[in-house]
Amino acid sequence: MTGEKIDDFYAIIPAGGVGSRLWPISRKNRPKFLYDFLGSGSTLIQSTYLRLVALAGEGHVVVSTGEKHVDAVREQIPALADDAVFAEPVGRDSTAAIALATAILARRHGDDIVVGSFAADHVIRDQAAFAKSVREAVAAARAGYVCTIGIAASRPSTAFGYIRKGDSLASSVPDAPDAFTVREFVEKPDAATAQAYLITGDYHWNAGMFVMRARTLLDRLAQYKPQMAQQIAQIADAWDTPRRAETMASVWPAIEKIAFDYSIAEPLAAEGGVAMVPGGFGWDDIGDFNSLAALLPSHNAQNIKLLGDPDNLVQLDSAGDVIVTEAGRTIALLGVNDMVVVDTPDALLVAPRARSQEVKAMVAKLQEIGRDDIL
Amino acid sequence: MTGEKIDDFYAIIPAGGVGSRLWPISRKNRPKFLYDFLGSGSTLIQSTYLRLVALAGEGHVVVSTGEKHVDAVREQIPALADDAVFAEPVGRDSTAAIALATAILARRHGDDIVVGSFAADHVIRDQAAFAKSVREAVAAARAGYVCTIGIAASRPSTAFGYIRKGDSLASSVPDAPDAFTVREFVEKPDAATAQAYLITGDYHWNAGMFVMRARTLLDRLAQYKPQMAQQIAQIADAWDTPRRAETMASVWPAIEKIAFDYSIAEPLAAEGGVAMVPGGFGWDDIGDFNSLAALLPSHNAQNIKLLGDPDNLVQLDSAGDVIVTEAGRTIALLGVNDMVVVDTPDALLVAPRARSQEVKAMVAKLQEIGRDDIL
Repeated sequence: MTGEKIDDFYAIIPAGGVGSRLWPISRKNRPKFLYDFLGSGSTLIQSTYLRLVALAGEGHVVVSTGEKHVDAVREQIPALADDAVFAEPVGRDSTAAIALATAILARRHGDDIVVGSFAADHVIRDQAAFAKSVREAVAAARAGYVCTIGIAASRPSTAFGYIRKGDSLASSVPDAPDAFTVREFVEKPDAATAQAYLITGDYHWNAGMFVMRARTLLDRLAQYKPQMAQQIAQIADAWDTPRRAETMASVWPAIEKIAFDYSIAEPLAAEGGVAMVPGGFGWDDIGDFNSLAALLPSHNAQNIKLLGDPDNLVQLDSAGDVIVTEAGRTIALLGVNDMVVVDTPDALLVAPRARSQEVKAMVAKLQEIGRDDIL
Repeated sequence: MTGEKIDDFYAIIPAGGVGSRLWPISRKNRPKFLYDFLGSGSTLIQSTYLRLVALAGEGHVVVSTGEKHVDAVREQIPALADDAVFAEPVGRDSTAAIALATAILARRHGDDIVVGSFAADHVIRDQAAFAKSVREAVAAARAGYVCTIGIAASRPSTAFGYIRKGDSLASSVPDAPDAFTVREFVEKPDAATAQAYLITGDYHWNAGMFVMRARTLLDRLAQYKPQMAQQIAQIADAWDTPRRAETMASVWPAIEKIAFDYSIAEPLAAEGGVAMVPGGFGWDDIGDFNSLAALLPSHNAQNIKLLGDPDNLVQLDSAGDVIVTEAGRTIALLGVNDMVVVDTPDALLVAPRARSQEVKAMVAKLQEIGRDDIL
């Protein structure tokens, strides 16, 4: 379904972000990318890897993650070579993660390669459609663009940033017939604005997927963030040498924390250097339990969404709930509607689905009262 | 506060009834009387024992319970002598339980003694007021009455049967100045009827407390239930002999299952033989989690009622809930109002407080689907 491998393409998987709105499933020591949120048998990062290795090929996929997650990542993806996991002692946001991985890959394989960055914790339903979008994005990248994949907005979501498309690139980049220039990136809108975006058809969700030649990225970084470019180059030069640890320890922590959208994508879009390929492949970032619900099959006619062993759930007169059973206990619901119940061995969360976004506030509260044991 | 012991008084504690509306706290193997529902440090049967031994004295309190609960009862009340726990191989309802205990005590101490039956799973707040009511009831019993203690109705409850009082017995029984005759016992009313009862002031809740001479009870049993009287006599004759097990095995299972209210109290009230002493001592039978809530202190300003370690509960913007934390895990409530959350090691119950009565239906469903492991 996904066709030939793309020889000059390397995929980078930045694996960061705890996913605190998915507490108590996601924890500091088990961020959401390490979890099988769909009960599919694969964790999010495993699915991400399989999706990308099918396009880039063995040895063409690397993961950037926090030092403390390196062992778990290697355990979950044994196919990753020793030199394909880049450990960050502290998180420095996506610009640094993508730039360092790109700089290392460029030193290994030449800066003509195309790199693509895809978060470790996204869900994509239609692999063939995804592959088609990536191939077009690679074509746009070869033509010199930083190319993002804009997700077809299926509802007026206020949870995502948006990408506003410009003119078609079909004539100038024949291998990317669906590509457009990007006019601008816009922040998460309010509900009315999101509704207006949906109506125009010009706006896609920004899923943070970026595809570009290594050289393009490193040049643009040098243009917009010269200091960071120099720091990244210093680390990349040392990476595959005995000086890696020492250089990383002295240089990395001082790097500016800034998202790729702000450092590169936005200023470059203003210059007309960003392209977008629309993606209609069924995407979600599982931001909270409500969005998880949309991805889970219904447990019964009452539309209860269940993640876990169905034998652990007994319900009477309950509907529309999102239930996660991870502790092996029986969950008995009597007249419970549209609630989230997440049962883990050491913590239980109960909340209305409508307040799913606020789970983050619960995590903040637990932090505040010193409950690091369950964070 | 409770004064002298009452020399001729013996207290019987029938300890039966699982309390299925309090699942998953109450289980078949841990009925509610074995549980510390108020977090007071005493289980319900321990509190009941202490309340009664203060009036009847050591050696004057006996417990009738199911065979499988005998060990737990002895463990919880080590002060009970070997011959003070009457084991029932199968439950035969309250008439048989009270009558057998009475018949055994009458053979040991003479049938002039006064016996009083008090359920093992009731909560009584004011021991002094309770003692005063029992003393008056004993006086009425000595005067030949079967005397019940009628609970002052504090709200139009539809969960209890009612006792309709008749004329004052103050002049005929000077030691029971607050006693009345009982005109009738009435079943659990609907809400409108309960409201009407409350307004008249003539109706008290029937808590199933009965005080009477042993002789009175045995005579009335012979009058209303002659076959049962004969069966009970046969067992009681054999009880303190080597023939107990054999006689119990052959006679007990055949005894009619009928509540004391129906077999004795109602027909005798119609004859004018029942008295009632009003009891205003703060009583509850903890029928369900909603009534449990009324007995628990508030955890916080949001009126969350908590049974268990407060460190296990973290809430944000939640109010009016009833939380039982027995599993040692953290329960995180976000925007959860007026719900029941009962957390035990192998089962979790979530339900709105308004549906507390229906927890029984959940237990029935669990039975139906063969989940005896958690019943």
